[in-house]
Amino acid sequence: MSVDLIQALTDIVGEKGMLTGSDVSQRPDAWMGAATCQAKAIVRPASTEELSAVMKLCHQNDQTVTTHGGVTGLVGGTLSQPSDIVVSLERMRNIIEVDEQNRTLTAEAGVTLQAIQEAAEAAELFYPVDLGARGSATIGGNIATNAGGNRVLRYGMTRDSVLGLEAVLADGTVISSMSKVIKNNTGYDLRQLFVGSEGTLGIVTRAVLRLRAKPQGEATALVAVERFADLSKLLSLAEAGLSGGLSSFEVMWNDFYSLVTSFERHKAPLEASSPFYVILETQGKSNELEQARLEELLGEALEQELISDAILTQSVSERDKVWAIRDDIEALFSLAPLHGFDVSLPIAAMDDYLRKLRKQLLERWPDSACIVFGHLGDGNLHIIIGKIPSEDKKAVERLVYGGLAPLGGSISAEHGIGYEKKPYLCCSRSDAEIALMRTLKQAMDPKKLLNRGKVFD
Amino acid sequence: MSVDLIQALTDIVGEKGMLTGSDVSQRPDAWMGAATCQAKAIVRPASTEELSAVMKLCHQNDQTVTTHGGVTGLVGGTLSQPSDIVVSLERMRNIIEVDEQNRTLTAEAGVTLQAIQEAAEAAELFYPVDLGARGSATIGGNIATNAGGNRVLRYGMTRDSVLGLEAVLADGTVISSMSKVIKNNTGYDLRQLFVGSEGTLGIVTRAVLRLRAKPQGEATALVAVERFADLSKLLSLAEAGLSGGLSSFEVMWNDFYSLVTSFERHKAPLEASSPFYVILETQGKSNELEQARLEELLGEALEQELISDAILTQSVSERDKVWAIRDDIEALFSLAPLHGFDVSLPIAAMDDYLRKLRKQLLERWPDSACIVFGHLGDGNLHIIIGKIPSEDKKAVERLVYGGLAPLGGSISAEHGIGYEKKPYLCCSRSDAEIALMRTLKQAMDPKKLLNRGKVFD
Repeated sequence: MSVDLIQALTDIVGEKGMLTGSDVSQRPDAWMGAATCQAKAIVRPASTEELSAVMKLCHQNDQTVTTHGGVTGLVGGTLSQPSDIVVSLERMRNIIEVDEQNRTLTAEAGVTLQAIQEAAEAAELFYPVDLGARGSATIGGNIATNAGGNRVLRYGMTRDSVLGLEAVLADGTVISSMSKVIKNNTGYDLRQLFVGSEGTLGIVTRAVLRLRAKPQGEATALVAVERFADLSKLLSLAEAGLSGGLSSFEVMWNDFYSLVTSFERHKAPLEASSPFYVILETQGKSNELEQARLEELLGEALEQELISDAILTQSVSERDKVWAIRDDIEALFSLAPLHGFDVSLPIAAMDDYLRKLRKQLLERWPDSACIVFGHLGDGNLHIIIGKIPSEDKKAVERLVYGGLAPLGGSISAEHGIGYEKKPYLCCSRSDAEIALMRTLKQAMDPKKLLNRGKVFD
Repeated sequence: MSVDLIQALTDIVGEKGMLTGSDVSQRPDAWMGAATCQAKAIVRPASTEELSAVMKLCHQNDQTVTTHGGVTGLVGGTLSQPSDIVVSLERMRNIIEVDEQNRTLTAEAGVTLQAIQEAAEAAELFYPVDLGARGSATIGGNIATNAGGNRVLRYGMTRDSVLGLEAVLADGTVISSMSKVIKNNTGYDLRQLFVGSEGTLGIVTRAVLRLRAKPQGEATALVAVERFADLSKLLSLAEAGLSGGLSSFEVMWNDFYSLVTSFERHKAPLEASSPFYVILETQGKSNELEQARLEELLGEALEQELISDAILTQSVSERDKVWAIRDDIEALFSLAPLHGFDVSLPIAAMDDYLRKLRKQLLERWPDSACIVFGHLGDGNLHIIIGKIPSEDKKAVERLVYGGLAPLGGSISAEHGIGYEKKPYLCCSRSDAEIALMRTLKQAMDPKKLLNRGKVFD
């Protein structure tokens, strides 16, 4: 890259928009990444127009570009090379509008998820996507990776909350599909093409988000389940019985529940003797009503023998204690070295898949541990495999991912492919599908400038 | 087209799979179409493999192909030319699987929507997409057009119920993305690319649909509203108060309600003196519970003066009478010649848009009528303009569509673009968006064989 290009980029975004030298090398290049950013410069446009001019220039000069949002991804999607330019959306963080009547929020891509949630809340509305990194993760990054999180069961992924978006293509063209309407059958849904494409087809600059009615109350229960097949029956009963109020259905396998509640900081609300534990949460009109609905549901589930025991939390602190079990990832560190996976597969296939996986793991690594929990309602399992040395990572990955392909499972339910999971894309997608992805990439970014080396080669 | 190609196609699909001559010309080419199908042949493959072979052959011979599902579209998307081959999916009508545990249904594209609904029902589950043409419309056509219908507010469009699909590309390549999982962030979402592309990017052959918990009860109310701004407040109150149970929020403007209830076959449940009427429907656990929830909601809405009057229906026959008002499209025929529109726009902009439109219509056609009703919860309005001669159709279209562009509205909320709305695509989509659609079409179907002349040229 010539000095001329740096200068020309500075002319576009100004001194304030340009970081070079140690301002680049001191930045992390991934979430909790040990390494730091490698790039010729970090370009920080203040507007779509500036970014469009930046991309035009990069396109003319065959300059590769990696995009940074909040850099909270888990699959190396933001890694850059010394020859890259990094584009960061960090100066585009305006919430442009909250339209209370239409219940939409329009924002620039660099706004954090938390800022979006708070702006919705201030208007007595609700943006349902939520995840742990909310304070750093940006809405642009959420869109680029189709972020999921804790409430997918009821409200869907980020894909389902994006009504409109604007993106800059590799050649600087601005595609503005800033629709505020829910129904819009006018030609191809370009919006959906960008969502989840991990910055390889365009750089998201603005979005119109759908807001929802704010839940006024909630109720939470922890239940014990004795048979795997009863989990999906319980899920059906809960969806029907709570009339659309069900917002979480989180399953913990016994190994997870036993391990976590063995730590003194938790007091197990239910004895750790059942094979499955489920956190049920319903959101709705008032705490009292949701409590009553959930109580009735638990009664029915007990009567139908779908659950063997249940605790309906009676206070915020009781509720928080139940969720603290589910969220205590730290407890798993006792099993280090850890290998974490985020997969999804049909519920009907889960039990067999996990049995087989556990057997294979124990055959090869007799001391290993396989801890499972997840958003069962979405078919999404987190599998944490412990006590296997780091050098065996690839062998573990092959076991976990290899078993998914014949079941139509997904090697990445939420986290995306990025750089880390690229070798395993073929476990979830066919040759014809990957070829079609390449066709689309070739059509939209023939010079392969955007996030080169990510998702597929 | 040479006889050799017909023979070669017959070799693939067999005599039974091939219609020519009067078997072609006796078929309608559109819903209630006066004209009949024009095509060299109708090819009816019995499997994806057969269709793949058909498309390979057509591709080698530069043969254009128009696809037929149930032929119930409203925008001429199934019109064909004498030089075309029509591919009909009518022999691919197997329901392959209902997976009760995973709550998915896998079907071939030619299965009717009604058969899908009934198969779900038989498994005590629920496929939420519903529309009037359910008995003829096929799931393949629903997917190709991203069909909407009566329950979008709660369950989304067809797009939101398709977990996986399989399609045959213009060159015969089979893209099989038959995922049964809800969360699958592994590369580009090819599924979403085909949904709503109206047969121009590929021919859908199979799909995996997401089923839901079956509602066990419901309640319906009709209310009168005095101010436009109160409609969205009522919508918010209903969404929050009914805790996700709200399944319909249908608004009728006074002109619609007055006209329809002036016919003797209806007895107006509420006097026709308010500017707006809304049908509220909630679905959930039992009739008794939904009735109680809706009653409480109506009380609050009255207290907050968001509604001036309300009737909570007390029986199936009372409920049917309320819906019969909303569904009585026949009553509008008294205003023939009619021009019907299916638009969407931000709720906040509706009142002004309609005032302006009515004014413009009356200025030019003093005797004209403008009748409005629709799925306000989705931003979707049906506008029926009457007593304007057919030869003025284009002038009416320009008025209706022209006013939408500056508001970010959509000229087609549900019905698609097809052939009829092609001239107005630019009212809803920018030049850059349409150029990108062309880029995608060029990449996936460079010979423009699939549904040529539809959506855009």
